[in-house]
Amino acid sequence: MAEGITLEELQLAARNHGLPLEALRWDLTPIGLHYLLVHYDIPRVDPEAWRLEVGGLVERPLSLTLDELRERPSVEVAVTMECAGNGRARLEPRPISQPWLLEAVGTASWRGTPVSSLLEEARPLDGALDVLFTGLDRGVEGGEEQDYERSLPHAELMGSDALLAYEMNGVPLPPQHGAPLRLVVPGWYGMTSVKWLSRIAVLEAGFDGYQMRQSYRVRQEEDEPGEPVSRIQPRSLVIPPGIPDFLTRPRVVRPGTRVLEGRAWSGEAEIARVEVSTDGGATWSAAELGPTTLGRWAWRSWTYPWDAEPGDFELCSRASDAAGNVQPLDPPWNLGGYANNAVQRVPVTVTS
Amino acid sequence: MAEGITLEELQLAARNHGLPLEALRWDLTPIGLHYLLVHYDIPRVDPEAWRLEVGGLVERPLSLTLDELRERPSVEVAVTMECAGNGRARLEPRPISQPWLLEAVGTASWRGTPVSSLLEEARPLDGALDVLFTGLDRGVEGGEEQDYERSLPHAELMGSDALLAYEMNGVPLPPQHGAPLRLVVPGWYGMTSVKWLSRIAVLEAGFDGYQMRQSYRVRQEEDEPGEPVSRIQPRSLVIPPGIPDFLTRPRVVRPGTRVLEGRAWSGEAEIARVEVSTDGGATWSAAELGPTTLGRWAWRSWTYPWDAEPGDFELCSRASDAAGNVQPLDPPWNLGGYANNAVQRVPVTVTS
Repeated sequence: MAEGITLEELQLAARNHGLPLEALRWDLTPIGLHYLLVHYDIPRVDPEAWRLEVGGLVERPLSLTLDELRERPSVEVAVTMECAGNGRARLEPRPISQPWLLEAVGTASWRGTPVSSLLEEARPLDGALDVLFTGLDRGVEGGEEQDYERSLPHAELMGSDALLAYEMNGVPLPPQHGAPLRLVVPGWYGMTSVKWLSRIAVLEAGFDGYQMRQSYRVRQEEDEPGEPVSRIQPRSLVIPPGIPDFLTRPRVVRPGTRVLEGRAWSGEAEIARVEVSTDGGATWSAAELGPTTLGRWAWRSWTYPWDAEPGDFELCSRASDAAGNVQPLDPPWNLGGYANNAVQRVPVTVTS
Repeated sequence: MAEGITLEELQLAARNHGLPLEALRWDLTPIGLHYLLVHYDIPRVDPEAWRLEVGGLVERPLSLTLDELRERPSVEVAVTMECAGNGRARLEPRPISQPWLLEAVGTASWRGTPVSSLLEEARPLDGALDVLFTGLDRGVEGGEEQDYERSLPHAELMGSDALLAYEMNGVPLPPQHGAPLRLVVPGWYGMTSVKWLSRIAVLEAGFDGYQMRQSYRVRQEEDEPGEPVSRIQPRSLVIPPGIPDFLTRPRVVRPGTRVLEGRAWSGEAEIARVEVSTDGGATWSAAELGPTTLGRWAWRSWTYPWDAEPGDFELCSRASDAAGNVQPLDPPWNLGGYANNAVQRVPVTVTS
């Protein structure tokens, strides 16, 4: 599985980075351990010259400095963000792009001003249908030179907890996470949360740019329109117990009662249940869910006491959400390799 | 080149991370963009219970809390750190380990207490030859279960700028960079700068553990002892100009005078010269070196004005140090894939 990764995929894996799975132990992921996907380059931004422009189909266009945004009402929300391509490198045949295995996730506390209140301030006109967010990162993709930009339905945004964030975990937004300002859309895969935001435009028709029309669509064939990628599907991850082999990463665990720990999240609905298997998914037992103190949009911790006896095991966990979505055992394949939330498998040897 | 990366290598590339090359623009690498190699797992450390033990062949063993270390004399040094395996994935045949291409580097400002003064305080006895540094990260490597540990000659340390760092870029050491305390040895490849430091032991004989005897030796065959990897060989990197293709990363540049920028460093001696080629190394021109304000142990910036005319180019840079070491055009091969400082090649298309 995943043999034969190409130089191009490796170049992306070397620039972008995932969460080392032991870092699931922190409620809020320390800066530098949160997953990071930069489509093009981290742009050079002059904070003095930078403005957020809000325009398009609005009565009152805005042009705001970061200080002016900071003076507006602020909220702080813990959000688990996951890349839509997480799990891609486990698919066969493997879609060629950033080759994530399991680790494209992180949880941060984002502070900023609500998108809905800023849109209200700009007074969208009748007919406002879509809202376009444009970043300062520019590159070539699918042969098209483009700024990175994505849209969300106006109605969806007005009822959402989406925010324009200028702080992450209590410090100014780091450059790689979108400084000075980024969109954060709780519950949606990461491609929606446009970084290095420069412009918001209210539109009377759905935006049809590359990242909406071509990328981020679930389809089996190139010539079908497919369905847009949107909310995060349920997933859970186990913190690999014991100690690793440097190169191959299987785990060595001492016998005895070991409390397995992990996280579970879903953008569709609250986590309802996590189950654990130590035999590769043949049999399952319920894990105990931790507190909901991080709020609706962040992952939930879970624990499972495991009586580890000598032998070889394959640990798995499986999350279900309140809307009835359950992690599958087999990867759901699609052309772009999106939303593969198949259960994790952790090989473990318990020593005698 | 570098085709056929295995799942095991990809697992390492996904956990560890490099510096996206556009981040060479910062004198000090922002936290989260500095390269990171974690041999085993980031260990769980209880800061209340943690102590640094200094023992072995000393008159006065020490057991110190972090506060006690902070009360001692402190220094702050900007250090460019590079992984000894940087460039490994460009070698043929490719040594199987963390598959770095070019990006395993970063520069940080480290604050801490000098190793030499702490050793003096412990009063090494006659016969002190080697000093062993043991980290809290534990794993299996080459079939041996081990704590990560490396040593340095006592005489080398007493004359060096090595420090025990508790701050990085003005903030407490992040967990992934070795909190609460790490060794930083300026000028040496990163494997020397043991993270999550728990113990320093003065020895009367050279330490012969796995990371000295087996790893980090330059050799052509398994059965030769080889030479230990030590100081960073000269290297320079160009900040890729223009904009990238998302997947394949070649650059698109507009015609006109473009100032190419980059960094150069060497652990052997000061950087003496950087040359730039736009034709893949056939012809070279001198770049202008930037100021030395970051000090001896950090990279030096350089610039080169390029009159970019339409066409396809391959940009390269080549550093030389004051000891006469020059970056080679062809990768120097060895079994572990260490110290490959061959020149970078950046494909660029200048549009018409």
